[in-house]
Amino acid sequence: MTTVADFVATRVVAAQRRLATVSADALLVAAPHHVRYLTGRRPAGELLLTGGDLLTEPDAIVERLGFPGTGLLAETRHLTAARLRELAPAHANVEDGEWLLTGLRRHKDALELELLRRATELTGKAVRELADDDLTGVAELDLECRLWRSIRAGGAQGWAFDPSLAGGARAARPWHGVTTRALERGDVLVADVGAEVHGYKADLTRTFVVGGGNPVAGRALDAVRRARDAALAALRPGVPAAEVARAVAASLSESGFAGRMPHAAGHGIGLELHEAPFLTLRSTDVLDPGTVVNVEPGVYDPAWGGARLEDTVVIRDDGWEPLGEVTDG
Amino acid sequence: MTTVADFVATRVVAAQRRLATVSADALLVAAPHHVRYLTGRRPAGELLLTGGDLLTEPDAIVERLGFPGTGLLAETRHLTAARLRELAPAHANVEDGEWLLTGLRRHKDALELELLRRATELTGKAVRELADDDLTGVAELDLECRLWRSIRAGGAQGWAFDPSLAGGARAARPWHGVTTRALERGDVLVADVGAEVHGYKADLTRTFVVGGGNPVAGRALDAVRRARDAALAALRPGVPAAEVARAVAASLSESGFAGRMPHAAGHGIGLELHEAPFLTLRSTDVLDPGTVVNVEPGVYDPAWGGARLEDTVVIRDDGWEPLGEVTDG
Repeated sequence: MTTVADFVATRVVAAQRRLATVSADALLVAAPHHVRYLTGRRPAGELLLTGGDLLTEPDAIVERLGFPGTGLLAETRHLTAARLRELAPAHANVEDGEWLLTGLRRHKDALELELLRRATELTGKAVRELADDDLTGVAELDLECRLWRSIRAGGAQGWAFDPSLAGGARAARPWHGVTTRALERGDVLVADVGAEVHGYKADLTRTFVVGGGNPVAGRALDAVRRARDAALAALRPGVPAAEVARAVAASLSESGFAGRMPHAAGHGIGLELHEAPFLTLRSTDVLDPGTVVNVEPGVYDPAWGGARLEDTVVIRDDGWEPLGEVTDG
Repeated sequence: MTTVADFVATRVVAAQRRLATVSADALLVAAPHHVRYLTGRRPAGELLLTGGDLLTEPDAIVERLGFPGTGLLAETRHLTAARLRELAPAHANVEDGEWLLTGLRRHKDALELELLRRATELTGKAVRELADDDLTGVAELDLECRLWRSIRAGGAQGWAFDPSLAGGARAARPWHGVTTRALERGDVLVADVGAEVHGYKADLTRTFVVGGGNPVAGRALDAVRRARDAALAALRPGVPAAEVARAVAASLSESGFAGRMPHAAGHGIGLELHEAPFLTLRSTDVLDPGTVVNVEPGVYDPAWGGARLEDTVVIRDDGWEPLGEVTDG
């Protein structure tokens, strides 16, 4: 049986191999997601990765970095100036080396995929339960409580991000938040929520029409479904991320919704909610096996609101598979 | 009428006066609470305070700090190494100057007191509503949803911290979190929650016995009430924070609960949940007028749980007044 410790040990060795390819002896890491990746634990502080070691005790880090001539890189986007001075006083001008870890973390191992799958399935189940009821007259805030109860009872530690439950014209903003206002019959409801399981984040969007009706929103949602299908059809190992973004734009345009999506077609997800690769028209990324991405086509209109579907998939050697269920609403 | 802009302008002038007392031309500030204090707005990034200016545009900060010979201090506990390099490339060894702001922020102005009062009252109201019902059989998680709905409907933007709703023996841990477990008749319920209103945080604890009964917990709660009263009786302008902590310890000891409180007797609160002054036996702080502190005596026992009461007060020239209602359960 492969244990958590085995997975973590493999990640550390892979990071050390990457470190060996650059002219540096050590990498000082501060971001909680990177620390969690390399330890398998909820982070308590910084860590120092060296060619043969992984130090998490501040005193041990200071001692190691006091060794004369140590070539250091640091993850400077999260390391504070105060901690840099405390841990590495001789390295005030340290260069950034975060790319060593972001590159590594793009390829999810089996443990990461299992946690992402759990987070995504919990989230999908919670949102499906909402759709079982007539939501007419229910406040967005009450829906948030139902979802919270469902994901927590299902084993999530918390939200991956502040949920957005946008009813009616409020859904014209891609991220709206949650208000005390009640849903009315015929409102769209764009629910964008995600559970977090042991640090791994889900990010899932579903669009309903409350109580049915609303043919205008229904046509938009049909267009979003086709765009989602076009994105999934474009996914395969080795495909440029920009090609998936183009497939979404082309499909929405064909459906008569050109220029109505003011956000990217999708993004990588894992220990961070938004991480590389990003599915944009200008992206130079390629989707390799082991990459997990969200695809999230949407269209928005201040007159009636918006429609969006967001699903998470992992790229495999021979195609892709969804994490959680891909549904039509 | 005093506007928000007036309050903010007064704070900036006070900070500039403090800056003039040290040999520095500018202070680079990164922490969201400090930035919010000096701008009155939700922070979007760092700011630079100079003797006559407050810069928030990164380009303007870089330009100003490129001026030869500028003496800089920085709030290095939040400023990242990457941002320090981007904004102040010539100041890699910048010294910390956060104390200029923490000292200033200890004395709350009328706008801050109003927001703290709102946050505390909203929180108190939400918790009082819980106590109106028999909570037997209700899950901690359901209580969290009720509280969330109440504070959001009341105008809070969110939680000040993850709530703790500890039922029965789970209350033996001062901070427990929230589980899906149902409360049983006779359980204590220690509810430690706080709303956030425009960045200002509430932090309030109440202890109930679910469905009544439980004389052991009742005696502990009586002792906690007496300790709370002893703390309030000790409060006055100019009193050492340690004296308040001693009053709590002495009262609990007199009630037969010596050594059963593994945390401080209280703490300052404002834009940060825990800020100076800290009410501990070793504190060297003095409680000046305008200081807002929480007092939170508690006793804990793995056999039956715990009891804690936490209230927020502002020190005035002639004594103190509570922010929100001080109640007995």
